[in-house]
Amino acid sequence: MADYESVLKGKYPAKAHCEKVVAHLRNALDEKDVPTTLYLQGQTTHMQEDNDEAAPFRQRRHFLYLSGCLLPDCHLTYHIPTSTLTLFIPPSTPTASSGPACLSLPPGPLKIRHRRLPHLRRPPLPPPRTRRPRHHPLHHRSWRHPPPPSDLTSAFPTLNETTLHPTIDTCRVTKDAYEIALLKKANAITASAHTAALRKIPSATNETELVGQFLCTCVSAGAKKQAYSGIFGCGANAATLHYQHNDEVLSPSKRVVLIDAAAEWEGYCADVTRTMPLHPEGFDRESAQIYVIVEQMQNACFALLKGGVKWEEVHELAHEIAVEGLLSIGIFKRGGEGDDRKGEIMRQRTSVAFFPHGLGHYLGMDCHDTGGNANYEDEDPMFRYLRVRGTVPEGAVVTVEPGVYFCRFIVEPYLRDERHRRFIDEEVLERYWDVGGVRIEDDVVITKDGYENLTTAPKGIEEMMRVMYSEADG
Amino acid sequence: MADYESVLKGKYPAKAHCEKVVAHLRNALDEKDVPTTLYLQGQTTHMQEDNDEAAPFRQRRHFLYLSGCLLPDCHLTYHIPTSTLTLFIPPSTPTASSGPACLSLPPGPLKIRHRRLPHLRRPPLPPPRTRRPRHHPLHHRSWRHPPPPSDLTSAFPTLNETTLHPTIDTCRVTKDAYEIALLKKANAITASAHTAALRKIPSATNETELVGQFLCTCVSAGAKKQAYSGIFGCGANAATLHYQHNDEVLSPSKRVVLIDAAAEWEGYCADVTRTMPLHPEGFDRESAQIYVIVEQMQNACFALLKGGVKWEEVHELAHEIAVEGLLSIGIFKRGGEGDDRKGEIMRQRTSVAFFPHGLGHYLGMDCHDTGGNANYEDEDPMFRYLRVRGTVPEGAVVTVEPGVYFCRFIVEPYLRDERHRRFIDEEVLERYWDVGGVRIEDDVVITKDGYENLTTAPKGIEEMMRVMYSEADG
Repeated sequence: MADYESVLKGKYPAKAHCEKVVAHLRNALDEKDVPTTLYLQGQTTHMQEDNDEAAPFRQRRHFLYLSGCLLPDCHLTYHIPTSTLTLFIPPSTPTASSGPACLSLPPGPLKIRHRRLPHLRRPPLPPPRTRRPRHHPLHHRSWRHPPPPSDLTSAFPTLNETTLHPTIDTCRVTKDAYEIALLKKANAITASAHTAALRKIPSATNETELVGQFLCTCVSAGAKKQAYSGIFGCGANAATLHYQHNDEVLSPSKRVVLIDAAAEWEGYCADVTRTMPLHPEGFDRESAQIYVIVEQMQNACFALLKGGVKWEEVHELAHEIAVEGLLSIGIFKRGGEGDDRKGEIMRQRTSVAFFPHGLGHYLGMDCHDTGGNANYEDEDPMFRYLRVRGTVPEGAVVTVEPGVYFCRFIVEPYLRDERHRRFIDEEVLERYWDVGGVRIEDDVVITKDGYENLTTAPKGIEEMMRVMYSEADG
Repeated sequence: MADYESVLKGKYPAKAHCEKVVAHLRNALDEKDVPTTLYLQGQTTHMQEDNDEAAPFRQRRHFLYLSGCLLPDCHLTYHIPTSTLTLFIPPSTPTASSGPACLSLPPGPLKIRHRRLPHLRRPPLPPPRTRRPRHHPLHHRSWRHPPPPSDLTSAFPTLNETTLHPTIDTCRVTKDAYEIALLKKANAITASAHTAALRKIPSATNETELVGQFLCTCVSAGAKKQAYSGIFGCGANAATLHYQHNDEVLSPSKRVVLIDAAAEWEGYCADVTRTMPLHPEGFDRESAQIYVIVEQMQNACFALLKGGVKWEEVHELAHEIAVEGLLSIGIFKRGGEGDDRKGEIMRQRTSVAFFPHGLGHYLGMDCHDTGGNANYEDEDPMFRYLRVRGTVPEGAVVTVEPGVYFCRFIVEPYLRDERHRRFIDEEVLERYWDVGGVRIEDDVVITKDGYENLTTAPKGIEEMMRVMYSEADG
């Protein structure tokens, strides 16, 4: 049994999460402003428009963090003085239909009550805000059985929006052992799915078949939900950062297929990208060169990781390795003797043309998890799309996902700009457009002195080829 | 090439649908009240709460019917005097991300415009309604590029809600050749998926693996969406009418597995149920008996079908065949000589205990399509859940889905009720609880003198066994 499976035999640490949040609240608020009770409403059932089926359900993440509960239409309270966590679920309706009450409840340290919430002391409220945030509609009318606990819904929204939600967001950045185990399980299933897709490549004729094989593996293993909308792009599609069509004909002339897809496990997301050869004999020369550069970018970044590492430095190192790599294969022109060509290119940010996204992001209950503090207004294009800014604490889980792409829409403006075009050898570049793009993405937990890689999907040219062919009947 | 594929090489008949709707409006309204322009807003992009990914997109069905367009954030106008159908799509944003503009447009007879809607004559409005229907929010703020056409959004909602939407609902009941071809294509993919699931049974260990195989087949064939949330239930789960867990261990002792699942193709739904043996040697005696009864119910119903058939009569016939079948195997006690036992049971509605749902429903862009006029308040339990009431016109597509179930929650109240218990032999019944349930469901289009079955999934004990084993490597 994998190590994470034994951890997952335990309970979701909902109560520990409540205590962590309360400790943060006590730090942030005057003692008199700390409420006696936390209250959260989970996500409600929403019907599809003009249809009698419910829309796909996704639990509200704040609620999941404090409850471990994936059911719709629930509420929770956490009574701070007595450390009592109570989950309110809709009353059991034992019909032949499987309503929410038929779903399995989490094995948490929760009291489960099928009754109205008690009358609670109204907590002291911070000053009212004029505008309600868009994504926290705490008053919701579709909760019908039992009637919504009006004492709570009227008393808590403001506190939740101004204080509780942001506090939970902060707490979520560092993960405990149970959460790491959930992320490992999501990664293990994801690894099987990448393996299955890899083995499917020799016989597949369309991107759709790789999607199908990937989903089959995840769902068969019990992971009903994907962590995000997957990318299965061959050839130039690999250069479309959020490619979603996933339905183009595969042919070896398209050189590579990039698969960025992963399973969710009990609300926790893996996020894994592999770039695989489409040709039966493996990568062509240009694709292999780019693959190796991206591999070097990722390995160099790994070596910097540890608790407190400054993420901008890791991201910048990835760019430096990319510049060295693109210089070595001649896409960037080498300078004259004594020129600091690498430094010049770094200062001009020309490598952003080929590595236009951030190195990674926090990962957890959301694929792009809370706490990153991205600055999409940053005037420096190298950091504009970096989803984590500042230091990364021990216990955080981040993706490390360098890439090199040949996307005409992104690169061509650089070819028209004198600051950049002088560095780029267009004749050499011409041979690389068909590579499309290469990205390699793993999920790692930051430790005091380094990191642990949670991702186990096959990686590296040799291993991928071995999985694709030698173990095809495994 | 299948016949439907040649039809689907043509255009979606959006304009013909507009004309059909206008003809109905002319019948329903005074000429002066018929507007010069129809206006509809398609479904908008919705973000997942607390997340940077959009929720799964489902086009608004009224809009799809008049446009054939599956893209988010679009609008349409149909100018009646000139028969001009115009689709307004969000402006193309050629980024590396695949926004809506990257999706393929339908090959419809549409003018496509990337600009603001023209100023249109405000149509005469019917009297205002005091309460807005819940599911037609025509004013929606998330349409940002170009700005919402305020002339239209302010002028049309009332007309749409009171008149246009119900008219479209009526028009959707009968299908044209293109829609039948779409439903055939959805059925063809669904048949492959049922076949693949059937072949998976001998090696599968959990319901999840059947779900995975089913999804794989649909997605590989290009059908990214399921028509509805599928049911994959073995043993007693087959008796849970809307079973959704789909994650129980399979074992031959559970006797049968019921799969009610289907693909959607370009917005059109198949809806197919097959009940398959789990034991390698096929159905046990009791399961086979029930299977044959349900098969007889379906065949008897098929024989009644033709344009104008009264659906209650077809549903009632299904009950009669069920009663005969349950009498023949002794679950219903045979009466004394001269007793009209079948008539007595029918009059008491006791068969509703074993066949508690309706025989079928209209099928099209929705799985439970428009126009059925169900009466969920009907005091007669035999007809309360019948989703189609009255006559079924030529050109309508209905499901024919009889079933016989042994669901303790549903049957036990009948065993406690003197009106019913006298008919039921509990000792015989005891042997059938483990069968769970059997349902067989096909989609048929009603013709003038009969019907055409659109469903091609393997059916019948012999054929299913042949597919499961003999063709396992096919």
